[in-house]
Parts: sequence; C-alpha cells; structure tokens
Amino acid sequence: MSHTAELIAIGTELLLGNIANTDAQMISEGLSELGINVFYHTVVGDNPQRVRQAVDIARTRADIIITTGGLGPTCDDLTKVALAEAFGKGLFFHEPSAQRIRDRFLQMERPMTENNLQQAMLPEGCTVLENDWGTAPGVAFEADGVHVLMLPGPPRECEMMFRHRAVPYLKALSDGVIVSRTVKTFGIGESAVEDKLRDLMNALHNPTLAPYAKPTGTELRITAHADTEEEAFALIAPVEEQVKAIMGDYVIGVDVNSVQEVCFNLLREKGLTMGTAESCTGGLIAKLITDLPGSSQVFMGGVVSYTNQVKAGLLGVSWDLLEEYGAVSPQVAEAMARGAKEALGCDIAVSATGVAGPDSDDRGNPVGLVDLGLAWEDQCIVREFHAGRGDRERVRRMAAGTALDMVRRHLAGSEIEPEAQ
Amino acid sequence: MSHTAELIAIGTELLLGNIANTDAQMISEGLSELGINVFYHTVVGDNPQRVRQAVDIARTRADIIITTGGLGPTCDDLTKVALAEAFGKGLFFHEPSAQRIRDRFLQMERPMTENNLQQAMLPEGCTVLENDWGTAPGVAFEADGVHVLMLPGPPRECEMMFRHRAVPYLKALSDGVIVSRTVKTFGIGESAVEDKLRDLMNALHNPTLAPYAKPTGTELRITAHADTEEEAFALIAPVEEQVKAIMGDYVIGVDVNSVQEVCFNLLREKGLTMGTAESCTGGLIAKLITDLPGSSQVFMGGVVSYTNQVKAGLLGVSWDLLEEYGAVSPQVAEAMARGAKEALGCDIAVSATGVAGPDSDDRGNPVGLVDLGLAWEDQCIVREFHAGRGDRERVRRMAAGTALDMVRRHLAGSEIEPEAQ
Repeated sequence: MSHTAELIAIGTELLLGNIANTDAQMISEGLSELGINVFYHTVVGDNPQRVRQAVDIARTRADIIITTGGLGPTCDDLTKVALAEAFGKGLFFHEPSAQRIRDRFLQMERPMTENNLQQAMLPEGCTVLENDWGTAPGVAFEADGVHVLMLPGPPRECEMMFRHRAVPYLKALSDGVIVSRTVKTFGIGESAVEDKLRDLMNALHNPTLAPYAKPTGTELRITAHADTEEEAFALIAPVEEQVKAIMGDYVIGVDVNSVQEVCFNLLREKGLTMGTAESCTGGLIAKLITDLPGSSQVFMGGVVSYTNQVKAGLLGVSWDLLEEYGAVSPQVAEAMARGAKEALGCDIAVSATGVAGPDSDDRGNPVGLVDLGLAWEDQCIVREFHAGRGDRERVRRMAAGTALDMVRRHLAGSEIEPEAQ
Repeated sequence: MSHTAELIAIGTELLLGNIANTDAQMISEGLSELGINVFYHTVVGDNPQRVRQAVDIARTRADIIITTGGLGPTCDDLTKVALAEAFGKGLFFHEPSAQRIRDRFLQMERPMTENNLQQAMLPEGCTVLENDWGTAPGVAFEADGVHVLMLPGPPRECEMMFRHRAVPYLKALSDGVIVSRTVKTFGIGESAVEDKLRDLMNALHNPTLAPYAKPTGTELRITAHADTEEEAFALIAPVEEQVKAIMGDYVIGVDVNSVQEVCFNLLREKGLTMGTAESCTGGLIAKLITDLPGSSQVFMGGVVSYTNQVKAGLLGVSWDLLEEYGAVSPQVAEAMARGAKEALGCDIAVSATGVAGPDSDDRGNPVGLVDLGLAWEDQCIVREFHAGRGDRERVRRMAAGTALDMVRRHLAGSEIEPEAQ
C-alpha cells in the first residue's frame, strides 16, 4: 500500500524569513527514498489555532503527518498539545523522558528550569522517539488511520531524529525493506546525465534510478524494495554496475560525499601528501580539503598567490614566464604547481589560475577562463577550461572542483581530462 | 489597513527534496520589512488540482497570495492557468511580452521553440511584472478582494523580481512608504543583542527595531512607516544613533553585508594591502576576502601552513618557538602574522592557528582554542579565544570571522578585543 505524507513545519521564525525550511527538504528527500509520496508542505507559526487548522487540512489529504519544530519549553510544547488535541488524545507524564532531560542538563553542567520537564508530557499510547541530540523527545502515534510523527526543529537535531528514529518507524509501515545506493559523479551536469541514462531510468521499476543535482556533483540514487536487505542489495548490484559502465570515469565513488573526500581517501591509502597553489580560487581549494576532519594527515598546506609578486616570491614562478604569457596561462599554471610542490614539500601539488570576474583580465582573457596544473615527481600536466557564463562564485567553485577532480583522476589512474560529452 | 499574505510555492522538485524553499525565506523577510503578516507557507507540486486546492484554502485566510514557480514552458505555465481559473479570469496573448521573449532568445543566441510563447498568455486585466532576469513574465492582479502576485521560481530570478517588481506593487497597497536601515554587528550573539536592546525594542512602534541572526553576524533592522521617504528616514535616524551607541564597536556598519566587505572598503580608503597566514582555518579567511569582486586591489595573498614545515619554511616561524610553545600558541600566531607580512609584502597580515577538531591537539589543547595574530609596521597584537562547544565547521567559521574582525577593528581604530559582555 502506498503512503502519502504531509510535512507541517511549526515556527514563527520561518514566517519571518529568519531561516529557510531546510528540514522539509531533508525529510522530503528521505521520504522519496522510502517510496512515500509528499503532496504538500505547510509552514505555520507558533499559534495553536493555526497549527490546529493546518493539521485538520493535512489529515484529509495524507495518511502520514510529520511535524517539525514547536517542541520544547520556549514554545510551550505547542506541537504536542495541538496534535494530541486534534486526535483526541490526553497527555501523560513520561518519567523515563523526564529522567533523560534531567540527565542531559547534568551532563551539560547547566541548571534545569522546571518548564523543561513539560517536554516529558506525551500523548497517550504514543511511541517515544528518544532524542540523543537534544532535550525534547520526539513522538509517534497512530489515530484515525493517520500516523503522526513529531520531530524537533533545529536542523541537525531534526536530521538525526529523522534518520535514526523516524525512518525505522516509517520502514515498519511498509512490507519488506527499502534500501538505496548513490553513485556520485563529478564534472557532468544533470541534463547530460539524464541524456545518458534516460533509457535505463525508464526501463527500471525496482530498483528505481533517480538523478539529484547537488552542488558537489550529480548523484544517481538506486533504490530497491524487497523482503530482505540482502535481496534489495542483490537487485541494486547489476544496476549499479550498468550506471558505472555508462558514466565511466565521471563516477567518483558510491555513497561518498564529495570529490575532496575521495581525494583524501586515495591519498591516505597511498600514503601521499598534497598541497595547493591558488590564484583565482583564492584559498577555496585548501578550504574544501581542510573542511574534512583528519585532513592534516594528507594536506601540507598551500599558497594563495593573488599577485605576481607572491607567485614569484613564494612559488618561484619566473618573471619571464609571467611577462611573456601572463598570470592566466598554462605555462604559469605549470610553474605554480611545480613551485608549490617544492615549497610545500608535498608529493602532489595542484594549481589554479584564472579570471573569476566580474571583469576580464588585463590581457583580455575572458571571465571564466581557468588554467589548472598538477605536479608530481618531476612531471606536470595542465588543463585549460572555460567555466562558461557564470558569476564569480560559480567560476571559483567550478575551478576548485575541477582542480580536485584532476587530483582524483590522477590518483585513480583515470584520464585527466574527461571525454567531451 | 494591515495585510496578510500567504506564499504558495509550486514545484515537484521541492516535494522531492531536491531543493529547499529559499524563495519563501527571502520573500517572508521582505514582507516582514513591509509590515505585511505571513501566517502560512504552502508548497505544492506541478499538479493543477492540488495547486487549485492550495489557492482555494489560501484565499480564505489571506488578502495577498504570492506564488513562486510553475511559470514557463517546462511546466505548461501551470500557475498562471490555475490562478486565472481560480479567480474566474480568461487568458489573453500579450504581444509586448512575446516580443521580450523573442528578443531574449536572440540575445542569448539560442533557438526559441514555439512553446516559449505560451509564457505570453496572461490573465485579463493583470499588471505585467516585466522580467529582466529570465523569460517568464511575472503577473499581478486583484480579484474578489485578493491581490495575487506570481513570480518565477529560480532563486536569483525570484529575488530580483520580488525586490524590483513585487515590492513596489505591494508598497503601493499601503498608505505612505516603508523604508529600513540595517545596523550590522559582529562578534555578539542574537540573545546578547536582545538583552541589550530589549527595552528599546519594546518602547518603539514606528520605527520598529528587529534583530536577525545571520551567519555573517546579527543584524538590527530599523523600519519606519511615513508619508514620504524623507520623513521615514528622519524617524529612523535617532534610533540608528541609539542602536549604535548601545552596541558600541560591535557595530561593523550600516547596510553592509559582512565584516570582510567592511575590511575591503577600509583598506581601499586607506590605500593599504593585506595578507593571511592560516593554519586551522585552512584557507577560509583568504576565500572569504577573495569572494569579493575587486579584492585583488587590497589582497596580496596568503599561506596555508597546515604543517610546522610550512610554518617554518614559508613563514619563517622558528623551530624553537614551535617546539617550546606548540603550533597553537600566541607566540606562534604572532610569528605567523609577522612572517606573512614579510613573505607576502603586504601592509597588514592576519594569522590564525587553533584546534578545529574533532580531536584535541598533541599538546592537549582543547577543540575550539584559537590564537590570532595581527601584524602591521613593526607591531603585532595577538588575541586568544575559545570558540566554545561546536563542530569543526563552526570553530573554523568563528576563527575566520574573528580574525577579519581584528583587521576591521584595527583599521577603524577600535579596541582589538571587544569588552566582555
């Protein structure tokens, strides 16, 4: 039986525009993976009458209602009170939840005010969704053929509670299990991916195959429904192989987050270190690598050479090269990468020099032109590309991502430049 | 008369979790500035019946309906058709809009398919909201006491259309004008700001004063309603002075975006250049500065010294210091800043060294401990702080922001370290 869910976010801060409803995005993506339809999201303020109205509308058009926010003492536990009332349920004091709240305050070494214990008032007959990431317990109950789940609003707490508490509850509503694997690509847009995979996507029913455009690269999610996890993974395996074969070396990995994470893992496996020499990306490549915990194991450092003086002084790029070819040139990209490898004492160095905009450079190179270099041992390879129309942020993001993808391709033994699409 | 708006976002991609509804956040913030209440947001897919149902509910509880998305050929101009039908309006072919669409394709040098002209079918008697940022025109009309505005969905297009088309339309609905000024602070949290300003906020009615917590610092928006802009600004001026006096040197500027933008402007005014030496922030400070167009006028470059070898080799930090005090110490922060000023040839250099986590360092310094240095002429000042509980991303963001705030305070002649709150 197919389920339909409606999400109700409760919080005046959403209606004032202080924050975006990212909880709804995260939950919607998760529900789609579970094969649960979502037809509406509603956002409502911290107002009992309007919350009640939203719930009364939602129960006529969905058999699963998931609320986010409005739990906890600052909003008088509005959500639990309103939902219990809407479904004719009383509230009772749940001592184990109260104890967890007391323990949490002890652990944080902060005094607990009495109103915190109000969070332990729960609807009769509910399933408690224990909150290991905050104070307010989540709640699930079934009434009048509707499953109601209430999750806390703060995004990280909401995500943990959804993944570790709501998903298992929702999986139990359907027969069998649903599992998925995500093939991550880099350097190819969503529409080009769809062109390559359209026939396969249309031919598939179980597993299904769906593309997701993320800032870190297009993801291909393969989702299977079966009686057991083992059977589901067996359904996924041949499709995963097909997707990998079709997408070739655009594939950076399965169930990985980003190209920098793949570089980090490959460097660690091989016992190699890297460094950066950045002009147009201005520190972004180094920032992306050092976002990763443990990156000091593989990352030595970098030079942001925003002027020719710094390119010459710290990276040893010769003034002759800079004058003859200009700062944005394959020649200077190569000299920057070789110089960084030397200056930083790393095994592999990657460089980026380009025109981020808004204006073309003093030699008339257009906005979006980027030269990248990759140096290792006594070798160096360069790649020139054009980021196409785009603002400064996009040019910089593409340049940094493509530089990291050169490192990934080099370490994985792929061609440095992908085939033209 | 006070107005109530409801936002309806139309797009299946929102219900699948592919994107978050950032349009709703942007519009809600703008409406709150205009003094228009928002009680609900609704999100619905590309489905005519469900769009109609959402509209029929919204018109019972709001006198302004703003839709985003569902314009343009890929969704058969679903929104315009559904809204025109809901309010009993026919559609007519608007030749000037058709001509704009043809011109736009010519300009982009792309062939126009005939279905694009469907976007020129508009509800009878509507106000056309000309779209200079995309192909689909926006639309506004009034019917049955409800104002309906339809804006395109892509976030940048939506923002431009809202600011430059919807806001003037909405301002005309109210008597007089509404204007606002935003005092931006850095280094003080929203709750501490509220403590300082609570009495003033409660005492004010016109102008109003409201805090907004942004990742780049807490903003204080002063909004006045008057017959003319001049009168409105005259109402704002004394409150702006009061807010500045209360917030002291936490104020980085009025109607500015970020502390790095303020640094950039101050450096340019004074004809000075800067550079960076980064350990725990791993390139983030340089990245934030070079996000700004034109930053090459004031930014010379930076060194990301993730290892002691690089601190010694490129920044000239002595091995004795590194061994005696460890990499995370005021002494090394000072040596990094002084070394960067020398190596990069800049007027001012800022350094950051700290423990970003997830683990404490080999000397047992806790996660969140950060030392910052600021060198100019032959002088240097250091500041040590603890980012408090927080994940790696938060520690790095706070370290980078605080380093930039040291530069701002130095250039503005403020105390380098704010008074304890």
